[in-house]
Amino acid sequence: MAHQEKETSGLEWRITLGDGSSKSLVPETGPISRIWMGLKGLMAGLVLKVLKFFNKAWDIGVDDPRKVIHCLKAGMALTIVSLVYFTRPLYEGVGGNAMWAVMTVVVVFENTVGATISKSLNRVIGTTLAGFLAFGVHWVASQSGQKFEPLIIGASVFLLATAATFSRFIPSVKARFDYGALIFILTFSLVAVSGYRVDKLFALAHQRISTIIIGTCLCILVTMFICPIWAGQELHALICRNMDKLAGSLDGCVEEYFDHNGELKDSDKHPDKKLLGYKCVLNSKTTEESMANFARLEPAHGRFNFKHPWQQYLKIGASMRSCAYSIEALNSCIDSENQAPEFIKKHMSNVCLNVSSNSSCVIKELAKTIKTLKKSSSIDFLVEEMSSAVQDLQNEIKSLSNLLSPAELILPGSKETEKTTSTIHLLEVLPVVILSSLLIDISSRIQDIVKTVEELANVAEFKAEADDKAKQNQANINRIVPSQQNDDQQTMKALERV
Amino acid sequence: MAHQEKETSGLEWRITLGDGSSKSLVPETGPISRIWMGLKGLMAGLVLKVLKFFNKAWDIGVDDPRKVIHCLKAGMALTIVSLVYFTRPLYEGVGGNAMWAVMTVVVVFENTVGATISKSLNRVIGTTLAGFLAFGVHWVASQSGQKFEPLIIGASVFLLATAATFSRFIPSVKARFDYGALIFILTFSLVAVSGYRVDKLFALAHQRISTIIIGTCLCILVTMFICPIWAGQELHALICRNMDKLAGSLDGCVEEYFDHNGELKDSDKHPDKKLLGYKCVLNSKTTEESMANFARLEPAHGRFNFKHPWQQYLKIGASMRSCAYSIEALNSCIDSENQAPEFIKKHMSNVCLNVSSNSSCVIKELAKTIKTLKKSSSIDFLVEEMSSAVQDLQNEIKSLSNLLSPAELILPGSKETEKTTSTIHLLEVLPVVILSSLLIDISSRIQDIVKTVEELANVAEFKAEADDKAKQNQANINRIVPSQQNDDQQTMKALERV
Repeated sequence: MAHQEKETSGLEWRITLGDGSSKSLVPETGPISRIWMGLKGLMAGLVLKVLKFFNKAWDIGVDDPRKVIHCLKAGMALTIVSLVYFTRPLYEGVGGNAMWAVMTVVVVFENTVGATISKSLNRVIGTTLAGFLAFGVHWVASQSGQKFEPLIIGASVFLLATAATFSRFIPSVKARFDYGALIFILTFSLVAVSGYRVDKLFALAHQRISTIIIGTCLCILVTMFICPIWAGQELHALICRNMDKLAGSLDGCVEEYFDHNGELKDSDKHPDKKLLGYKCVLNSKTTEESMANFARLEPAHGRFNFKHPWQQYLKIGASMRSCAYSIEALNSCIDSENQAPEFIKKHMSNVCLNVSSNSSCVIKELAKTIKTLKKSSSIDFLVEEMSSAVQDLQNEIKSLSNLLSPAELILPGSKETEKTTSTIHLLEVLPVVILSSLLIDISSRIQDIVKTVEELANVAEFKAEADDKAKQNQANINRIVPSQQNDDQQTMKALERV
Repeated sequence: MAHQEKETSGLEWRITLGDGSSKSLVPETGPISRIWMGLKGLMAGLVLKVLKFFNKAWDIGVDDPRKVIHCLKAGMALTIVSLVYFTRPLYEGVGGNAMWAVMTVVVVFENTVGATISKSLNRVIGTTLAGFLAFGVHWVASQSGQKFEPLIIGASVFLLATAATFSRFIPSVKARFDYGALIFILTFSLVAVSGYRVDKLFALAHQRISTIIIGTCLCILVTMFICPIWAGQELHALICRNMDKLAGSLDGCVEEYFDHNGELKDSDKHPDKKLLGYKCVLNSKTTEESMANFARLEPAHGRFNFKHPWQQYLKIGASMRSCAYSIEALNSCIDSENQAPEFIKKHMSNVCLNVSSNSSCVIKELAKTIKTLKKSSSIDFLVEEMSSAVQDLQNEIKSLSNLLSPAELILPGSKETEKTTSTIHLLEVLPVVILSSLLIDISSRIQDIVKTVEELANVAEFKAEADDKAKQNQANINRIVPSQQNDDQQTMKALERV
């Protein structure tokens, strides 16, 4: 049947109908060809899915080539450890237990140096501790006679497994020794129980620990010396990136709200990546915490000392998240149904945009401070600018009152109500006023970020920026300050230039 | 020296000074006693730390006794699997490879049934797949001669380890098959490489798989039949708990803002657990996602079918988080420096509290809907109440305009400014107005939660509440509706009773 169908695909039977049109005759499909078609569809769907999967994988690789490098490193480490198997002297040195080295490499090899060190330490310490304990228990058990031996060993396994499992629920243990506790249980039960059978217990423990040390050393060497990825550097970069995203979102949201260029139509409006960058800040808490945990274990690398205050980065992250919450509220202003009339928006847009651009300037400067590990000479100036922009905004809100009129003015003594219809109503101003107050709130939260970054700069002893740059900034300030005293309007323009 | 000090502790040497006062003579402490004191201090510090740690552990156990039960279960499973070692027939049946069963239990045993099943599936599938592949590679290698054998095996280990490591970066794989990929690499390298040495490859693979199946079955049986903790039920309870927390925070924040009873002083103000409950909602995204992933694998349990729409819970969680972001903004209103004057607060407090209590009623009703798995008969009514409370609040904001006066009324045609000082200013009203607009925003976000919960009710085919209850609610509505038509003030009170 399938064969027949193939033949007909070249030819075509046509029948001419009464009205002059012609219709092609399609051979009726039998059950086999229908199954065939179904299978073909299924296969095509499967192939499409697989292609999509590979496409996605390819994108991930292109986005971050270091991931590919990490995988190559993992493959390399595993191939090297296999050499232990291939080389007879090494194989016999560990009594055929080379398997443990392979296992160690598979389990311990992690993306960042810190994570690898952490897992290695956990594995070595967990194994050693459990090994010693198991020895002790085994000795006690063997002294207490044939009858009690399995009882004592069983009870000790039960008790220690229960205790170690419980310790994994304690947050401080969970954060640092989760894997160690697992390995502790594993080794203890293996050694204590197998000791009942295998007499050469000491040799077994010795072999196991030495193979594990071979594996961990190999992993640490490979992660550390071949294109290393440092948890500390990653955390550092993450915080910088998130700050830039925060600044971008803030700018983007306010611009979108005021539709700055008046060019964007509804269809063009892009709820794009840049605008939603703050969501990354909201979701990066877990990553930051684990990175900071790993970074503590890393040796000095790049521009970071061994005792770099990584914990401070968590505080910076928390203050950024607090800022991101407000940007989330800001973002919901854009989508809100209640919008202020265009002329009010236009009236307020300059002051608001000024606050947002000054605020994002501060964030960007902070990002630069962290990026370069140098105290910024202009941050105080920028913060002051932000505060003065906020002050302007507050004044503008005050002056908005002038445009407002009571909708119904109840005159005391008279029972009539006098309506004025020419001016605007509180409800109309409200959306813009709420946006403004959110901006003011955001700027105060940014000051918290400034504080945490300054703390970091102090604790980590950042150096000041190069002198020439400081002088240049000083010149800028000198140029601007007198104009501030003269004319506010001019200041605004000068600031926009800055 | 230490001995001497001990002696003097009973006696005391005193010297009378020129001014008549006396001074006791303390014997000078030697280096040994100083070291002793230092050690004692150190020990005391250590003991204190250990005590603190145990105290914390005890609290965790008391807070959630199921954690203790889980640990006991883990200890039990491990003790049972040790029996495989103690019983000679079983031990010999798996050729001394009982170790793998112990390892499986240690690694696979998880807190919830779903997590255990997920890890078991990963372990079994990963091992089997990798075993077959390793066989194939080993066969090809053995056919290609002594010289190429290690080369082919090495290359295959490198390639597959690289690919499998990379797959762990792909989010869809990471979420479900992370552990499976790890086990795949592990098994493949062990089998492929050890095959070079051990001739009895087939027996090895067979033993390994059977011991793993023994281990996983034991784990699944123990987690499932002894005080089971279901991931689905946990997710369900988490969502309900978070809803109650959200409602509590909302109520608490608004009450705190208006200092409802006028009794709380600054020192009494409690930034307590209840108030900050919404933070739990902000931080539970990761937990929800992993729970939903595990819940899919669980068989029908309690009131949940196998195909219970767990993914819908994630949507509910997301809508709750969106609401929690707004509560965060609300919370920052409490701490804000700018507060409205007391009389304005008092003026607005009733309408605002009405909105918040109606909103939290809706959330509590949703929590009840989910808790009981029954469609609420009163939710529509409650949502309507919330909307009407929001409408009242909007009206109140409108009427606030009556109290407002332009600070400086610039009369057209005249250059003088006329100041009115008797009424209030926009800036003074602003904090309350912002709070109100946040409340309005929250109520619209709550409607999103209502929608997602309704979707859940439809997909999971919740039944309607018992008829008698529906009738009772209807009676409530009938009692309230006429009073609404008569007098707004009365309605408020009736609502507060509801």
